[in-house]
Amino acid sequence: MWKRHSVCNQLNIDHPVIQAGMAGGVTTPALVSAVSNAGGLGNLGAGYMTPEAMVHTIKEIKQSTSRTFGVNVFVPQYPQSTAEEIAHANKWLEPYRSELGIELAPTPKQDTSIFEKQVEALMREQVPVVSFTFGVPPVEVINDLKKAGVVVIGTATTVEEAIINEEQGMDMVVAQGSEAGGHRGTFAGSFNQAMIGTMSLVPQVTDHVEIPVIASGGIMDGRGVKAALALGAQAAQLGTAFVTCQESGAKAQHKEAILNTKETDTVVTSVFSGKPARGIRNSFIEEMEKGAGGNLLAYPLQNMLTKEIRKEAASQNRPEYMSLWSGQSPRLSTSQSASSIVESIVSYVDSKAP
Amino acid sequence: MWKRHSVCNQLNIDHPVIQAGMAGGVTTPALVSAVSNAGGLGNLGAGYMTPEAMVHTIKEIKQSTSRTFGVNVFVPQYPQSTAEEIAHANKWLEPYRSELGIELAPTPKQDTSIFEKQVEALMREQVPVVSFTFGVPPVEVINDLKKAGVVVIGTATTVEEAIINEEQGMDMVVAQGSEAGGHRGTFAGSFNQAMIGTMSLVPQVTDHVEIPVIASGGIMDGRGVKAALALGAQAAQLGTAFVTCQESGAKAQHKEAILNTKETDTVVTSVFSGKPARGIRNSFIEEMEKGAGGNLLAYPLQNMLTKEIRKEAASQNRPEYMSLWSGQSPRLSTSQSASSIVESIVSYVDSKAP
Repeated sequence: MWKRHSVCNQLNIDHPVIQAGMAGGVTTPALVSAVSNAGGLGNLGAGYMTPEAMVHTIKEIKQSTSRTFGVNVFVPQYPQSTAEEIAHANKWLEPYRSELGIELAPTPKQDTSIFEKQVEALMREQVPVVSFTFGVPPVEVINDLKKAGVVVIGTATTVEEAIINEEQGMDMVVAQGSEAGGHRGTFAGSFNQAMIGTMSLVPQVTDHVEIPVIASGGIMDGRGVKAALALGAQAAQLGTAFVTCQESGAKAQHKEAILNTKETDTVVTSVFSGKPARGIRNSFIEEMEKGAGGNLLAYPLQNMLTKEIRKEAASQNRPEYMSLWSGQSPRLSTSQSASSIVESIVSYVDSKAP
Repeated sequence: MWKRHSVCNQLNIDHPVIQAGMAGGVTTPALVSAVSNAGGLGNLGAGYMTPEAMVHTIKEIKQSTSRTFGVNVFVPQYPQSTAEEIAHANKWLEPYRSELGIELAPTPKQDTSIFEKQVEALMREQVPVVSFTFGVPPVEVINDLKKAGVVVIGTATTVEEAIINEEQGMDMVVAQGSEAGGHRGTFAGSFNQAMIGTMSLVPQVTDHVEIPVIASGGIMDGRGVKAALALGAQAAQLGTAFVTCQESGAKAQHKEAILNTKETDTVVTSVFSGKPARGIRNSFIEEMEKGAGGNLLAYPLQNMLTKEIRKEAASQNRPEYMSLWSGQSPRLSTSQSASSIVESIVSYVDSKAP
């Protein structure tokens, strides 16, 4: 019955349920393939991956599923920082490094060829669906992918951004509401002004674009997916719901934090990466928000500076220094399997419940 | 068919569509009765009304409808301000008074008996439904109203606030998402932490209370109402959607502003009333947010200070100094009649659309 949704036809999936391509190790091959095998769309979050690691993981996914899956990549930006700015930013991180026994402060370096190499690899591997966060890629990239038969999906946090995605040739667009966990996809205009709740964002976006809209932000179960479809979306994308599931590669402390958190405990902060993202409030956020505000580097430089801190914090079991990304619906999180998440959604949406 | 919703039975209405009891002259007897006559629940926003004016308006409503209607009142709070604080707050407002030709700065005075008199009048007038914003009233008030057969409805912006409403005996609770226009109903905990999107708030609230939940925030049409029901709400409450309708008593500039605004143009601010409320960004907000932040009086004192400015701004056609309350879905606003809003919602929700 859901085949009537054009996204299901276009993506060749059974159910309009998409697992968000979260970067940072959450989207294991087991998770991606479990979602795709259950009839949804699994997505590898390859934003931070080298092309080589990405290809390796894609091959693993292909061994576990013959169904459609996708890969999410980040449209790159190359901000400049002076040595002085880097020193300032590192100064604020010194107490955490000291606490965790990290000796060296890194000097952030950007490889400006990664995105191009990622795209080449995605074409070579014939990945069926590629989605983008943090902007719209160059039109040649979009055209090359589409010529190769790849379905391309963009991200928007406002009506204007959705229109840009459509105009630039994206096949579909994810409308990311303010409830969403992790990074805000905002790329045109102010982050603050683009904090639009999913209930408001989705119908306003669907009224202004012809391409299919995928709702995201706060959606955790069949109720949210059914609501998204009622609002005019053709599918729903879930992130946090899959972070805590069995196949997720999220750190144990991250899963535990979401499973034990209230809806009032998340906050949007730039202190981890230099770009606003929603996660569970902890000491690192609280302390850094107080002092470091004006001394953060731009994304992705700040992310490089905090990487070792986040990694060491996880291995030393100090969740107060980790980035615990979560949307605003943590009370709805569960530790079931990915396939049972998809199945319970399908069963609710197909039911006669309102 | 919708009679299966227990709120429809309890309220004796045909459709789970509630017009929010917005204060400040929007909810004319024509609006309230049009919504109730169309099978929804019209509500008089009596928060700022004297008991006498409220009774007068209730009598007018009764002449226009024999259906159930409600009245919304504010649970009062009595903050203290020193003469010095009042002088500071007035200093920031001086430029606007000067610009508009207002000579006297008011000294805010609170009548601590108004709420009690409002409740007495509501009982005397046998108003069938009474809703509360800004907290839960004293338990004796709740018990008296319930003994008199009145259905009492509270407001919550978090799960915790919904539980408090239930524990104190409220019959139903409005879950107000962050998209909502006008004042935030937050009364327990921090306003910032209670900015939960409707998509996240409603299912988390319905999981934690037994009383019926009414969804609000960003809902403007049948899509939103259908989504609210999918999320587990028993009804949906719409505010902004009715501000621009024909029977609304909102100022012409207020209606025009909403009809011509984008989803990115609203902001939550305390500068008008001393309490966070969502409205369309204008000069008054931008200038006051920059300078006056620490010098605002607490609600409702700040509201008293700005009252004359807002009134004069409207009569001199200076919308840049008015409070233009709006939720995050202004692109969905229309200037149709209240009954046609209700009818088009009912027709969408009853349709086979997803």
